Amino acid sequence: MIKINENYLKLPGSYLFSEIAGRIRKYNENNPELDLIRLGIGDVTRPLAPSVVEALHRAVDDEAAAESFHGYGPEAGYEFLRSKISEEHYGRLGVKIAVDEIFVGDGAKSDTGNIGDIFAADSTVAVCDPVYPVYVDTNAMAGRAGNYRQADGRWSRLTYLPCTAENNFVPELPSTDEAAPELIYLCFPNNPTGSVITREQLGLWVDYARKNGSIILYDAAYEAYITEDLPHSIFEIEGARECAIEFCSFSKLAGFTGIRLGYTVIPRELKVDGTSLNSLWSRRQSTKFNGASYLTQRAGEAVFSVQGQKEVRETIAYYQANARTIYSGLSKLGWQVYGAVNAPYIWLKTPDNMGSWEFFDYLLEHAGIAGTPGSGFGPCGEGYFRLTAFGTAEKTEEAVARITTLVR
Amino acid sequence: MIKINENYLKLPGSYLFSEIAGRIRKYNENNPELDLIRLGIGDVTRPLAPSVVEALHRAVDDEAAAESFHGYGPEAGYEFLRSKISEEHYGRLGVKIAVDEIFVGDGAKSDTGNIGDIFAADSTVAVCDPVYPVYVDTNAMAGRAGNYRQADGRWSRLTYLPCTAENNFVPELPSTDEAAPELIYLCFPNNPTGSVITREQLGLWVDYARKNGSIILYDAAYEAYITEDLPHSIFEIEGARECAIEFCSFSKLAGFTGIRLGYTVIPRELKVDGTSLNSLWSRRQSTKFNGASYLTQRAGEAVFSVQGQKEVRETIAYYQANARTIYSGLSKLGWQVYGAVNAPYIWLKTPDNMGSWEFFDYLLEHAGIAGTPGSGFGPCGEGYFRLTAFGTAEKTEEAVARITTLVR
Repeated sequence: MIKINENYLKLPGSYLFSEIAGRIRKYNENNPELDLIRLGIGDVTRPLAPSVVEALHRAVDDEAAAESFHGYGPEAGYEFLRSKISEEHYGRLGVKIAVDEIFVGDGAKSDTGNIGDIFAADSTVAVCDPVYPVYVDTNAMAGRAGNYRQADGRWSRLTYLPCTAENNFVPELPSTDEAAPELIYLCFPNNPTGSVITREQLGLWVDYARKNGSIILYDAAYEAYITEDLPHSIFEIEGARECAIEFCSFSKLAGFTGIRLGYTVIPRELKVDGTSLNSLWSRRQSTKFNGASYLTQRAGEAVFSVQGQKEVRETIAYYQANARTIYSGLSKLGWQVYGAVNAPYIWLKTPDNMGSWEFFDYLLEHAGIAGTPGSGFGPCGEGYFRLTAFGTAEKTEEAVARITTLVR
Repeated sequence: MIKINENYLKLPGSYLFSEIAGRIRKYNENNPELDLIRLGIGDVTRPLAPSVVEALHRAVDDEAAAESFHGYGPEAGYEFLRSKISEEHYGRLGVKIAVDEIFVGDGAKSDTGNIGDIFAADSTVAVCDPVYPVYVDTNAMAGRAGNYRQADGRWSRLTYLPCTAENNFVPELPSTDEAAPELIYLCFPNNPTGSVITREQLGLWVDYARKNGSIILYDAAYEAYITEDLPHSIFEIEGARECAIEFCSFSKLAGFTGIRLGYTVIPRELKVDGTSLNSLWSRRQSTKFNGASYLTQRAGEAVFSVQGQKEVRETIAYYQANARTIYSGLSKLGWQVYGAVNAPYIWLKTPDNMGSWEFFDYLLEHAGIAGTPGSGFGPCGEGYFRLTAFGTAEKTEEAVARITTLVR
């Protein structure tokens, strides 16, 4: 008699964004006439850049003729895209990443979710709190998280790194009294808090990981939103090639949320007990994945053209302006507001000490605005709320106006 | 100190098709002037159908304007595609499959590779021998396969179902003396042998699975190549909804190998100890996957239009003619040839009792033809060889001519 993976049964409720989508669906059904403003799920609203659209049309035409048809591609991605990532993205940062250290995939969610496959099932894991739920849930599914405790909303085997207003939402190193966590998930600019990490702070983590034989899983999905002098890649930090894997995405860089493209960087010198993690991931991907769509990879290539860069930077600037609109609008109400400056997320302390889901329902019911409850990202997120900068400028301004009216 | 997933270290050599690609690359480097004919990796060569190309251009234009832009889609796929699969594919077979039983993904390789996530790590597994390597390797990675024995090329914890000329390459039920395997991978029309299963034979497997509480993982990626009265879906068999998961692909149906689209069907009544596998897979996909590309899903929708169907059927007929060309050409040489009638694969006994890899090198060196060594699919494939019908008609005829010249 077949048995299921029992770890799945330990997962509490459904995936955060599915839960939010469900509540919004219900709200819409009950209020069909109302104009809902969605600043919840971190989805973009601007169309693809013209250069990307052109590249996609060309790629479709490639697939329309036998001479230029592309079937199965290399599982790790086409050279034309990987070399652009190496030269344009990393080259510009002054970071040397070889083409064969880059694995193109269908998005950072898949890659951050699947990377656990190559590590031992009993590896110990540290996550920030609050945190992007995928890191936690995928480790829970793999059995690494232990058991979920309803009482404090934490998993028994995870190490939580509290990110609070006190530490500016940048976690401190774990106490040296405890065994170091073997896998450490970091994400900067941070989802959900919009906080950033300095080179010095990130250097402390790299040193810690090297000293303790830990691996940092670094999610850089939001690096394009950095406006200040901060690291865009963990590989800007000395020693990171010996202890870090980096995940990047075209979703927020170029609006590819519906197109699907991301990549993962595993340096060749990153080894565990002599085994190359680059080789293990290569084996994982070539066995369980058949490469990202040719069309999408051509689209990704176009993002790195001169014109493509100009266009995607304009769109990013558009979202950055939204972030400032929300940040300054809510600050004016006397609310405590974080993030926004180097990130597309605005993280706010809920007013009147409302609970996160209470504030979610309150904002949905009274202002027709959907955000994301901070507690959905972990216990330390309770009493906080996330808004995204990915709406239209009009809706974003309207949202701030509605909240201002509601509060005053 | 972090540890890796040690199961990866048990995997012998690299993934079959990567190995073949490597040998071909080397051959090409040494023989740049020669015209290699690739009948190895099961990749298509015909361009996308005009209806699909049109749909892709339209979808790209959707993404080019804010009003029609699609960002994150439902993780399980858009209703517009899932309803077509339900109505057009399954409806035509007289099989009732609800929209929420269909999970759209980026290809059958990913889904057959990832499905193991929802089952217990110690589940027992049966595979055909020879077999599509992904089923074996992904279970080995999950630790279900035990240890690889160099001596007989088998994994200690897998049950092998021999598929030989004697049983027409359709496996017999396991002996009732042994505990029934909990997961049973079946693929018909079969990769690599091109063999088919009758309704009666498949009924025996469904009865066996129901009686023993096993789950059949049914790979129907090649159903579009069936020309005789045979089941296209395991759900044509009574009782299959209680014991089977089915995987389908647009790769061979519509040439989407580079575009990436497939789907997995998990009936609602498929439960293990009261837990719905449909819910578990939904949780897996919504946590670790962000949906197939919007573009690709629109392309998939177009496959089911009247004109789309006409076009893809023409291309399938083109490949089917290739299959007949190879089948009859090699039969004329007195070779034992199998498959081809209901499948895009031709499975042949190597002449002069050559080993599979020996014949691979022989054909590559002397005829400039790349096929796939049968032994790469399992020990029972030793002494066999796979050719695919996915080349161009000209190259396929040329290949048969070259082999005929070589042999005579």
